[in-house]
Amino acid sequence: MKVLAYAAKDASSPLAPYVYTQRALRDNDVTIEILYCGVCHSDLHQARNDWGGSMYPIVPGHEIVGRVTSIGADVKRFKVGDAVAVGCLVDSCQHCDQCQAGDEQFCREGFVGTYNGLDRHTGEVTYGGYAKQIVVREQFVLAVPDGLDLSRVAPLLCAGITTYSPLQIWGVRAGSRVGVIGLGGLGHMAVKLAAGLGAEVTVISRTADKEADAKSLGAHHVLISTDEAAMTKAQSSFDLIIDTVPVRHDVSIYVPLVDVKGALVIVGQLGQIEELSTVPIVMGRRTLAGSLIGGIAQTQELLDFCAKEQILPKCEMIRMDQINEAFDRMERSDVRYRFVIDMASLTEA
Amino acid sequence: MKVLAYAAKDASSPLAPYVYTQRALRDNDVTIEILYCGVCHSDLHQARNDWGGSMYPIVPGHEIVGRVTSIGADVKRFKVGDAVAVGCLVDSCQHCDQCQAGDEQFCREGFVGTYNGLDRHTGEVTYGGYAKQIVVREQFVLAVPDGLDLSRVAPLLCAGITTYSPLQIWGVRAGSRVGVIGLGGLGHMAVKLAAGLGAEVTVISRTADKEADAKSLGAHHVLISTDEAAMTKAQSSFDLIIDTVPVRHDVSIYVPLVDVKGALVIVGQLGQIEELSTVPIVMGRRTLAGSLIGGIAQTQELLDFCAKEQILPKCEMIRMDQINEAFDRMERSDVRYRFVIDMASLTEA
Repeated sequence: MKVLAYAAKDASSPLAPYVYTQRALRDNDVTIEILYCGVCHSDLHQARNDWGGSMYPIVPGHEIVGRVTSIGADVKRFKVGDAVAVGCLVDSCQHCDQCQAGDEQFCREGFVGTYNGLDRHTGEVTYGGYAKQIVVREQFVLAVPDGLDLSRVAPLLCAGITTYSPLQIWGVRAGSRVGVIGLGGLGHMAVKLAAGLGAEVTVISRTADKEADAKSLGAHHVLISTDEAAMTKAQSSFDLIIDTVPVRHDVSIYVPLVDVKGALVIVGQLGQIEELSTVPIVMGRRTLAGSLIGGIAQTQELLDFCAKEQILPKCEMIRMDQINEAFDRMERSDVRYRFVIDMASLTEA
Repeated sequence: MKVLAYAAKDASSPLAPYVYTQRALRDNDVTIEILYCGVCHSDLHQARNDWGGSMYPIVPGHEIVGRVTSIGADVKRFKVGDAVAVGCLVDSCQHCDQCQAGDEQFCREGFVGTYNGLDRHTGEVTYGGYAKQIVVREQFVLAVPDGLDLSRVAPLLCAGITTYSPLQIWGVRAGSRVGVIGLGGLGHMAVKLAAGLGAEVTVISRTADKEADAKSLGAHHVLISTDEAAMTKAQSSFDLIIDTVPVRHDVSIYVPLVDVKGALVIVGQLGQIEELSTVPIVMGRRTLAGSLIGGIAQTQELLDFCAKEQILPKCEMIRMDQINEAFDRMERSDVRYRFVIDMASLTEA
């Protein structure tokens, strides 16, 4: 079947309409009409080959929400018309220790990315959610619970699970003291989710200008990282800090804010960080860790949690043909807090 | 009571005999005749004020083994003649969350160091184990189980617990894959203890010359960190790496050796480490952590475990008057693997 999409044809061209032929439905596949797709910073990185390895044309998009339009013969969990979602993963080996543990993102054979991945059967490049339709293996399709506003669900599939996973892994619960560094797509979800779990949430920011926004999202406090007295006073005051900053930065000023036996978890930046002192790490058994999205079962748990607590991202809806402008604005951090493409806007020219 | 000891009178003088007046026995105190005292690298650092904060004269020594010679009125767990030990801590508040959790080393009011600490009642500077005798609060005295060779127990009190604690905290058990970086006082204990717990142990070393030693201590493999092919092959192959290197070094080459969800735990170096990439940390939920000695209950657990498994450090016995030479040799890493002072050699001139 021919699918209308938006693609980058190389690292320097703007995204433009593109039609590709979708693989035939397999017995364990679900066909999804895409209604909404979130715009993740990594879409931009991969469209521009910032990390290397981009295979053109690239159809980005891994925050996908839609409805089932057909199912393969063996599909059990979904039927035509169901509201469903797809995140960053569309396949994995399913038998290694990591897949068995529900951590498909760490699959020993490598997970198949929703776009710019290679299909495990045909070796074809996968195409993502900036499109009218996608075909995905049943095991990687999430059920969207009733009562969630479909137009705002998409960012949960990457920004949501990326911050929910460390909150769960590091045991955040009512009364936990959680710090969030950076208040973008990931950071604003971290605030909402941590607050939803009953944590006492502090946004850690270089300037005070985000205070009102932070508090409107559910943060209880704002800590200004350039205020030395406040930073000294805040030492050892967090059980967990989630660092969502996407660019190179100095992590060492944040480590002492973590309480003994606590953790600072990096979910944003991929690359070198500045020199670090081991003193607060050793002297307080503190942990510097990282976390990568989350497994399928945990993503479903997140969707169910968000439905129950009515936690949804703050989105700005755009048309498909505004994507290049949205990329530019995202680079300037000019978005509060996530662009979502209304896929009804993508039509034949 | 007058106590004969060895002290550094300032940062540049060699250690020399010194007599001090010991505080009177309190109701919850135990007086210990010191039989053996281990020589820790931090003794040298503090004698020379390498970390700042040294209060002279300093009587170093926090790997203490001896026999009880008197007890205070309220002491319940010890009697005269008992074989006992004292490690790095001699007091803490006992009521904060950390003390209550058995982590007196993280006491919110600060633990009292065995030497160069301040007594919680009198404010007097504490003097350590390079001496004939010490008086210690009962709660900080360990029982040495029967069947342990007293002349080799001392290094368990610092080098032992410093490596045993992370093995326990990070859940090492039979079949765990443990790497040990650095084969000094701490590293050789890490190898023995991890092997004693049934782990598959690999010593990670810059050169092959320690292979025979590593294997004689119980290591199953040696990985040469300058062998690029071997390092590539060893990626993601350890559940836990214990990094005992005491000086500034590049940690980033070791992080990728840790398996997904595994940890690299620093127990040696206090100070800056080189630039680090977040890629293996984020992509595999890997952890960079630190660990500081261990609590009193865990130290007792270590002594009991070592008695049961007959695990003891490899020691070189010295006389008290050889301590300055021992410091020099320790600086050149010329010791396999821990100096222990036979305190019978300390006599009035």
